[in-house]
Amino acid sequence: MATESKENLTKPLAHYSHARQAGHLVFIAGQGCRDPETDVWAGVTFDKSGNVTTIDFEAQVRGVFRNIDAVLAVEGLTKHQIIDIQVFLTSMTDQFPIMNKVWNEFFKDVSPPPTRTTIAVKELPGLNLIEMKAIAVAKDKK
Amino acid sequence: MATESKENLTKPLAHYSHARQAGHLVFIAGQGCRDPETDVWAGVTFDKSGNVTTIDFEAQVRGVFRNIDAVLAVEGLTKHQIIDIQVFLTSMTDQFPIMNKVWNEFFKDVSPPPTRTTIAVKELPGLNLIEMKAIAVAKDKK
Amino acid sequence: MATESKENLTKPLAHYSHARQAGHLVFIAGQGCRDPETDVWAGVTFDKSGNVTTIDFEAQVRGVFRNIDAVLAVEGLTKHQIIDIQVFLTSMTDQFPIMNKVWNEFFKDVSPPPTRTTIAVKELPGLNLIEMKAIAVAKDKK
Repeated sequence: MATESKENLTKPLAHYSHARQAGHLVFIAGQGCRDPETDVWAGVTFDKSGNVTTIDFEAQVRGVFRNIDAVLAVEGLTKHQIIDIQVFLTSMTDQFPIMNKVWNEFFKDVSPPPTRTTIAVKELPGLNLIEMKAIAVAKDKK
Repeated sequence: MATESKENLTKPLAHYSHARQAGHLVFIAGQGCRDPETDVWAGVTFDKSGNVTTIDFEAQVRGVFRNIDAVLAVEGLTKHQIIDIQVFLTSMTDQFPIMNKVWNEFFKDVSPPPTRTTIAVKELPGLNLIEMKAIAVAKDKK
Repeated sequence: MATESKENLTKPLAHYSHARQAGHLVFIAGQGCRDPETDVWAGVTFDKSGNVTTIDFEAQVRGVFRNIDAVLAVEGLTKHQIIDIQVFLTSMTDQFPIMNKVWNEFFKDVSPPPTRTTIAVKELPGLNLIEMKAIAVAKDKK
């Protein structure tokens, strides 16, 4: 199986890796929703002066899953190998139902689905209103 | 050793698993304090109109440990196999000493105890003032 | 390789371990910046009445890495074995650039560097403005 190019991944904001394997597990760095091609966060609309006008939260959730998919692909993995996810929201009331809807769509065909832990935090990097941290099962242990 | 029924577990709020094993580890989904039988959060008192009047934080901590115990039991494990816990509070000042008291009681006979990381977050799902994410050592590696 | 003394570690605030191994991994408890010798948080200045006057955030980041180094040393490990870190800040805007600067210095010679997830939370224990949770690769699997 051919692995995807690292060009599909967002540029890390510091000296860290997008994925690291140890034994049976592949750890994936926290993924926001920045588009790897445009370097702009998913779902954000700007006015002519460059100020943020609206943020489409559902588009951000989809952006996060797109980035997780891209990191997994580089490792030769898919969402079927994810075993644990931490979800970081910035508002439980507004975002929890929308995140659950997109989550259920994304993992619909995955059985058993991963374990999950959801918390709402004070702030996330950049214009991310959501971020996820995933752990996957490796194809071959190292 | 007979494993416990999954009927002792809270109903997940979306398509995720309560526990997943990979290699030597069992990942457990973030556990709040909802009572699996009544589906009501531990320690919460409501008035006649259904509004929350008081929340007993200590009862919530005990509810979280009860739910972790129940998930471990389904896997044929006990608290003696837990190796790492993340504790999510919603107020450090008010809750940290109470959480530590119940923690020390719960893990009194466990040696060595798990590693631990405690943070206070903005919000947790539902009426949870506390939630914990645990990782345990599997009996047999897969 | 001689391992370091546990006297270089901060006293845990409850019955938990600083490090636990399972299979290929070593889990490390969340590390703040308290100095193991003085039991005082790094970078904090007090006035004559014992009130906090200033907190040097950069000194706190260095204090966290010093404490992670100390826990790793007891296990016979170094920063080169770290594979995953969760960074907990208390203000993204003020602290993210400074954390990144010290992070890049600390991991400069580490290749590949660990995966990373950064969130800003509501509160951390004591006078910590930053805390980190690390997972390392064990030398010999158990």
